[in-house]
Amino acid sequence: MWQKMLEAVLSGDTKALARAISFVENETPGYEELLSAISTNAVPVIGITGPPGAGKSTITDKLIGKYIAADDKVAVICVDPSSPFNFGSVLGDRIRMSEWYTNNNVFIRSLATRGSMGGLHPKIIEITELAKAAGYNRIIIETVGVGQSEVEIAGLADSTVVVLVPEGGDEVQTMKSGLMEIADVFVVNKTDRPGADGFVKNLRQMLAPAFHSHKNEISVVKTVAHEGEGIDELAEAIEKSLQHADGEKKSWLLAERTWQLIQKHRMKDIDKLQLKTEIEQAIRHNGSFNPYQFVRNSALLK
Amino acid sequence: MWQKMLEAVLSGDTKALARAISFVENETPGYEELLSAISTNAVPVIGITGPPGAGKSTITDKLIGKYIAADDKVAVICVDPSSPFNFGSVLGDRIRMSEWYTNNNVFIRSLATRGSMGGLHPKIIEITELAKAAGYNRIIIETVGVGQSEVEIAGLADSTVVVLVPEGGDEVQTMKSGLMEIADVFVVNKTDRPGADGFVKNLRQMLAPAFHSHKNEISVVKTVAHEGEGIDELAEAIEKSLQHADGEKKSWLLAERTWQLIQKHRMKDIDKLQLKTEIEQAIRHNGSFNPYQFVRNSALLK
Repeated sequence: MWQKMLEAVLSGDTKALARAISFVENETPGYEELLSAISTNAVPVIGITGPPGAGKSTITDKLIGKYIAADDKVAVICVDPSSPFNFGSVLGDRIRMSEWYTNNNVFIRSLATRGSMGGLHPKIIEITELAKAAGYNRIIIETVGVGQSEVEIAGLADSTVVVLVPEGGDEVQTMKSGLMEIADVFVVNKTDRPGADGFVKNLRQMLAPAFHSHKNEISVVKTVAHEGEGIDELAEAIEKSLQHADGEKKSWLLAERTWQLIQKHRMKDIDKLQLKTEIEQAIRHNGSFNPYQFVRNSALLK
Repeated sequence: MWQKMLEAVLSGDTKALARAISFVENETPGYEELLSAISTNAVPVIGITGPPGAGKSTITDKLIGKYIAADDKVAVICVDPSSPFNFGSVLGDRIRMSEWYTNNNVFIRSLATRGSMGGLHPKIIEITELAKAAGYNRIIIETVGVGQSEVEIAGLADSTVVVLVPEGGDEVQTMKSGLMEIADVFVVNKTDRPGADGFVKNLRQMLAPAFHSHKNEISVVKTVAHEGEGIDELAEAIEKSLQHADGEKKSWLLAERTWQLIQKHRMKDIDKLQLKTEIEQAIRHNGSFNPYQFVRNSALLK
């Protein structure tokens, strides 16, 4: 089953890639074998993040156009961390990219994440590797920056683009160190709006001291994405930052994932549902349950 | 060391409680012993969540006042999931509660969460139990609803209050099912603003169908918190929902934590930093590293 699927993925079959992603997403039996059989190669991963409404999808759209014109094959993975308090506009944004859905050199997949993980999708590393194996030589991961997702995208991407708008001054002021840690490129989009120049100037000033501790300069690019303005400069800034990308954060990510896999195997004898039933019984008998007490006395620790 | 600390906590010493929370937060050696030695009792936990600027801190402030007037001892734990894109207003909000810092019957602790967890603080269950052990008979956990935090607070709290403002229509429309799953009480704050009545009406209509699948009615309370309006009604709605609280979600939470503790003990022979070094070496030798391949062949799985 997974062997045939993998063969089709490697041959560049788009539908097979879509199926393989679902296969991995759903943890269908055989998915670990499939994943252990792909060998990965050095395809650059570009992360695009920023607050809702900053224009991430329009920028992604224009970047796709640019890469396609240069005969690249582009895979775009959109991750939408779900939260009851977030953004009705996400689906609308996606529609903007729809012209690419019929292009054979563009693969677009939206992933919704709702679960205990927070941040990006629990299988985002694997899905990225599948897209690489399928022959895409540009991977773009786009996500709304909320909670952990923008930190995780910086771990996964070789170049992380943070998209802001001129009205985002408060965000930048308050959390500048956090943003500087993750951004390789800042985009100030919608610079046809009032206050744009002042905002860009402040941002550049703020980044100047970071230069000393940061290995490479963080670019600030001005765009009016829906008119295509500044996209060439953005693509250039991304290329430049890719040249400086180091493997440091990637090896952390891989160590984390390896650790998780070991953990999964070591914990597979424990059924959470059964554990819960036992805890309910304990609460009924004793009125309370203390996990720390339980674990000290448990046979599960041998 | 931890025995003396525990003794002081149980005697109601506020400073000892503050120290014990830090002790647990920092995982200082002995903290597991301390936690295994406390026995917990049935103190209601009230969760307060909602988008930034909805007035959660003002509502918490007024609730504290009400409980103190009734001779309760109140512990408030404020959790601020940190994100580069979030809300400069958080610290300002905290200042509003400052009048309580000198009151012996009020304990306030702010926790910042920045790490791989997403959602609430990694030790929030333990910190809540410590506050219970210290003799507080009302625990309020307040958090900005972003990412996973509002789902987690619903797991931890016996009554979850979701605070909205009349302008929050889009949020509710888009994600109504998510909000209905977690809310026991809705507060529409700032109802002196235009459009408040329409918003409340819509919200009530939306909740009506949920009544059938939901065990208990979800209250909708109108407040103008900074003037104290509606706080009595809110306190009543909370009491009502506490009477219906079941232990179902709490036993899930305890099962999850127990599972994590078992996992921690079973994984303690593996050093992530060393794993990362090995992975870096593999990447240098082979150009790539596949966690799934590694784990299949690893001696760590025996």
